[in-house]
Amino acid sequence: MSEPGESVPPQGRSQTEGAAWGQPSVPTLAVVGTGLIGGSFAAALRRVGQVGRVLGVGRTPASLQRARDLGLIDEIADLSYAAAEADLIFLATPVGAMAPILRDLAPVLRPDALVTDAGSTKADVARLAQDILGDRYTQFIPGHPIAGSEMTGPEAADPMLYHGRKVVLTPFDETPGVLQHRLIRAWEACGARVALMTPEAHDRALAAVSHVPHFLAAAYMAGIVRSDDADTRLNLAGTGFRDFTRIAAGSAEVWRDIFLSNRTAVLRELDDFEQALRLLRTSLEGEPDAAALEAQLEQAALARRFWGGRSQM
Amino acid sequence: MSEPGESVPPQGRSQTEGAAWGQPSVPTLAVVGTGLIGGSFAAALRRVGQVGRVLGVGRTPASLQRARDLGLIDEIADLSYAAAEADLIFLATPVGAMAPILRDLAPVLRPDALVTDAGSTKADVARLAQDILGDRYTQFIPGHPIAGSEMTGPEAADPMLYHGRKVVLTPFDETPGVLQHRLIRAWEACGARVALMTPEAHDRALAAVSHVPHFLAAAYMAGIVRSDDADTRLNLAGTGFRDFTRIAAGSAEVWRDIFLSNRTAVLRELDDFEQALRLLRTSLEGEPDAAALEAQLEQAALARRFWGGRSQM
Repeated sequence: MSEPGESVPPQGRSQTEGAAWGQPSVPTLAVVGTGLIGGSFAAALRRVGQVGRVLGVGRTPASLQRARDLGLIDEIADLSYAAAEADLIFLATPVGAMAPILRDLAPVLRPDALVTDAGSTKADVARLAQDILGDRYTQFIPGHPIAGSEMTGPEAADPMLYHGRKVVLTPFDETPGVLQHRLIRAWEACGARVALMTPEAHDRALAAVSHVPHFLAAAYMAGIVRSDDADTRLNLAGTGFRDFTRIAAGSAEVWRDIFLSNRTAVLRELDDFEQALRLLRTSLEGEPDAAALEAQLEQAALARRFWGGRSQM
Repeated sequence: MSEPGESVPPQGRSQTEGAAWGQPSVPTLAVVGTGLIGGSFAAALRRVGQVGRVLGVGRTPASLQRARDLGLIDEIADLSYAAAEADLIFLATPVGAMAPILRDLAPVLRPDALVTDAGSTKADVARLAQDILGDRYTQFIPGHPIAGSEMTGPEAADPMLYHGRKVVLTPFDETPGVLQHRLIRAWEACGARVALMTPEAHDRALAAVSHVPHFLAAAYMAGIVRSDDADTRLNLAGTGFRDFTRIAAGSAEVWRDIFLSNRTAVLRELDDFEQALRLLRTSLEGEPDAAALEAQLEQAALARRFWGGRSQM
């Protein structure tokens, strides 16, 4: 691991934007919310020597203190100080907590600073930025790293969390290319692969492959635990159950905000799921249709195996 | 790894039932279906020196040949030969393939032989044994190891597959204790923990914690792959999706049989799930109720975390 002062440029990238040889590409980073997502971003940039100083901002002093003890951040700061100092401000808070932060940021944001977030929905965050930041909204690039863990807090932070993962950025049409390039470079330094799309396309896709699975796993888990013989059942649960329900252990507050933020797309995808469920159920009900049942199971199995082979997950 | 001839008794167990010191507790094992489940059982017993000779029976010559090349079985056999030779016959085939096998076994089964299976449903298997084996049904102990993998075939066999896993046995009231003891000992030698229950209690519990999750994951995956922009969506799928859908990659034939065999319990548990889904959905629809949404998510999260802590999975 190289120290910030000894950093070398990432492989094959020219050092534009005034980041001279030997200087980290993000001189000062402010992380708002120093848990798994924010802490891992700071740790990933530090691991490759691409960040100078890390300021930590948050609402829980004990958590900030742990982040500092763990070396994820260098200093605990308030938002005004962070806004005055930081070249890149990374908002790693639940989507529901973002409005007041943007309101506090708006009057103190440096004109050359770049702001991004890691929220799981993007259309609402893009709207917030436009509504609250005024003509500074072009300094904000909504983002979403497709990575996570059911673990939370600074202790869960991992410099390799984003390695090999996708990060979606949804820049405004008016956002200068040089800002986009700076953020893409930071994420690539964390080992991530960046995809650009519209906020709406992102939200529909994420409702389908992330939010609805969580919704279903949570509904399933809540149903099981409310059943009369929950204990006997859970006692026989195996690895299939373990994997199917793992996401249901995630933070209720975070997921409440995600579902509320992406409500329309989630409800639409739930409709699609319920239709697929009815179709599969029909093959089992009344006079069962073994061939139709197997055909649908085979379609699902082939699709999952193909995805698994392609994504190497 | 000790050779069969050098085997020592499992820790702390007395060698009853005539298995003299230095002899494996299962002199000859016949495995019908030498894939993941059957191959792992043979490999686990061999690993602890508790099996003498392993005969492999199956419908696919190439698969049997691979099982022999991998050392999972010693000889390829037909069912009559296996029935004449084996002390323990382990049926590791889909539940739907079990009736013809039992019919072939009935006239040739040795009166001192023990038969068991690894099917995912038990009431139907117990009925089959009673219907087909006549007064020999007490030699059959229905069983279900709660272990598996989305991988199939002899190559996937793993001597540690059952280590630390639950195995449910549903012996008939009339089954001699000495036979029950012999099978419990074999499973414990594989590292499994044995639970005894009625076939009906097993089937209800498994519908809840295994079959319905598979049904939902398959319906979800089939729905996704049929959507217009399946490719964009799957491209953004992450680890949550990976785990939630993993079971959907399982064998369509095996799961078709499971759903058909345990139809009544599966449909009842699906009703319960759909009720829990409606309740969660209600909190998001119309005028969203953020508190009710969070409360249900929190109930699910706490239940899942508690289970995770208890099961150490």
